Amino acid sequence: MSGLKKNIHKPTLLLNKQRAMQNIVAMAEKAQKSHTEFRPHFKTHQSAAIGKWFQDVGVTKITVSSLDMAEYLSEYGWADITVAIPTNIRQIDLINDLAGRIKLNLVIESVSTIEFLSQNLNSTVDIWLKIDVGYHRTGITWHDSPRILRIVNATHSAGNLILAGILTHAGHSYQARTPDDIADIFFKTAERMSSVQSMLDKNQHHVAISIGDTPGCSVVDEFKGIEEVRPGNFIFYDLHQLELGSCRENDIAIAVACPIIAKDESRKQLVIYGGAIHLSKESLNGNNGHSIYGRICKFEELGWSRMFGRSYISELSQEHGVIQAEPELFDTVQIGELLAILPVHSCLTANLLGQYLTLEGEVISMFHYQQ
Amino acid sequence: MSGLKKNIHKPTLLLNKQRAMQNIVAMAEKAQKSHTEFRPHFKTHQSAAIGKWFQDVGVTKITVSSLDMAEYLSEYGWADITVAIPTNIRQIDLINDLAGRIKLNLVIESVSTIEFLSQNLNSTVDIWLKIDVGYHRTGITWHDSPRILRIVNATHSAGNLILAGILTHAGHSYQARTPDDIADIFFKTAERMSSVQSMLDKNQHHVAISIGDTPGCSVVDEFKGIEEVRPGNFIFYDLHQLELGSCRENDIAIAVACPIIAKDESRKQLVIYGGAIHLSKESLNGNNGHSIYGRICKFEELGWSRMFGRSYISELSQEHGVIQAEPELFDTVQIGELLAILPVHSCLTANLLGQYLTLEGEVISMFHYQQ
Repeated sequence: MSGLKKNIHKPTLLLNKQRAMQNIVAMAEKAQKSHTEFRPHFKTHQSAAIGKWFQDVGVTKITVSSLDMAEYLSEYGWADITVAIPTNIRQIDLINDLAGRIKLNLVIESVSTIEFLSQNLNSTVDIWLKIDVGYHRTGITWHDSPRILRIVNATHSAGNLILAGILTHAGHSYQARTPDDIADIFFKTAERMSSVQSMLDKNQHHVAISIGDTPGCSVVDEFKGIEEVRPGNFIFYDLHQLELGSCRENDIAIAVACPIIAKDESRKQLVIYGGAIHLSKESLNGNNGHSIYGRICKFEELGWSRMFGRSYISELSQEHGVIQAEPELFDTVQIGELLAILPVHSCLTANLLGQYLTLEGEVISMFHYQQ
Repeated sequence: MSGLKKNIHKPTLLLNKQRAMQNIVAMAEKAQKSHTEFRPHFKTHQSAAIGKWFQDVGVTKITVSSLDMAEYLSEYGWADITVAIPTNIRQIDLINDLAGRIKLNLVIESVSTIEFLSQNLNSTVDIWLKIDVGYHRTGITWHDSPRILRIVNATHSAGNLILAGILTHAGHSYQARTPDDIADIFFKTAERMSSVQSMLDKNQHHVAISIGDTPGCSVVDEFKGIEEVRPGNFIFYDLHQLELGSCRENDIAIAVACPIIAKDESRKQLVIYGGAIHLSKESLNGNNGHSIYGRICKFEELGWSRMFGRSYISELSQEHGVIQAEPELFDTVQIGELLAILPVHSCLTANLLGQYLTLEGEVISMFHYQQ
């Protein structure tokens, strides 16, 4: 670790591979025990190299958040990919390219998109119908049977679309207060999806259920009766998941190494080189109404320390971060030293930094968004 | 423009070059009229190609927010660069490399950093002393003359450091309510910096003054008595600047083209492919307490329309954006259509999207942060 530190000069995304592997194995085992297909969401790590760690526990099917990410991962051997966002029909050329090479699963929630695909697809694709179980971002309301049936029928009429299942993202679990609340949302989600499944069954449409947000998949013991789960964030977790109770602090597998560039004695503030373009502006609400943009750890021989409970990033500009520091932190660090920052939202932080450095010193690359 | 739209399939950063040029020319003329050095901050656009537009109006000195950005721009002929963040001493190798090739200006606010540079620099660099005039992020309090003199004396003792001036960023102008408040902060900043300058003059230290945030530089008519201004955001402006009154809507020079992927009739919401990894999570507070992550325009023959005043992005997840839409917007658009989103903070949005597409169809590349 001391050798690692010597080679870090600027904001750098650190990855504790052992923790990430433990998180992967724990989720894979839970799915296996539940006889549930584990189709992890790769939008969090966005890395073909990290994807291999999932292959090692038997994963063959994955989820992504864009067609471009599907294209990138298809080039590394992934051949069964769900793009878990309502289908962007402007990318029909890429859809056709992918559907010709791999098993592409698209998410649909409107008749107009079905009609477009029906007319423009060159090959057959699997369709997952997006259901809204309470998050209210996208999807057809779970109890709106007429509309669900209308879209299912449109899918069947299309000819080149195979209705594989119903899919939801219970993103409202991120607003829960306790692990019990999260579990309630998970079970309620499963129940509502089952009722859609039964309704479709009665209408001679047999579909699978796909659910899976990290909070829900983390707090429940098994996924009984659910054909597929799609958690993503659990590979790294973060401060938001810690606050929700989906993970323990020791499960958080990434941190951003940032150099201290200034100290203000009167305000007990440390300034780091590390800002919104490294950590993202995602924040949590602190007890006294302030925003928290990250928590602070020191470097230790084998990784980073436990976080300082009364210190936090209180402000983030483009490249500066301001740490409101407790005396045990402030008084024991110097300008030029590195701190390890736990991110609020690991998906956004990883996306910004663009590559990983493991504690063993290995550089791991990832997908880069190109226009 | 219709030809342009045809080639846009996913979130794409659009640049109205004509507006950006007008913004550049207006700021350059104001500086010239004031006999003030114009040292624009390139952290907003981060592009060597756009940098050339500044050369066309006579700019030869620039500001950046990181040593890496200085390195990138030095490769395109920029030979006088200020790195406007307290110096990151861990990057001493890069500092030495740059200082050996160009006129590198570093920002300093602590004796420990001066001592480090004094011992580790291979060549001479210009030093700008960071002064805090009220923003309270970094810098020495403007009226703390003993501390200012202590650091100035340490600089002189160092031998390889040349004290060029005093520098501040009046970032508290971003909390102002009206253009008059912004102008007050600007003049108060100039006054406080002048008093530091006079104090140093009396002590036989002759220094220049460098100030310059976009709100202040935009609302005042001239920069009388100030040797240097360093605004950056003004090249593109954004919704935050519009809210402050630093610009008019017609001055905003970038927008993000995003495809509509879902429509919810009951909630009057449009969902776009375009999320936190395209726009950033920077937000403004709406009148009724909600967060605003962007404003919505339609495409027109020659660019984008005026924004819809009662529509806004109300939620952003990793790749989805939810638009709360007024009827005039909701009822007139379809899935698959493109909208143009005005960003809250253009610097963060440009950084995320990584390249520009001008309305004329030219692709312009930019700096990429690499670890």
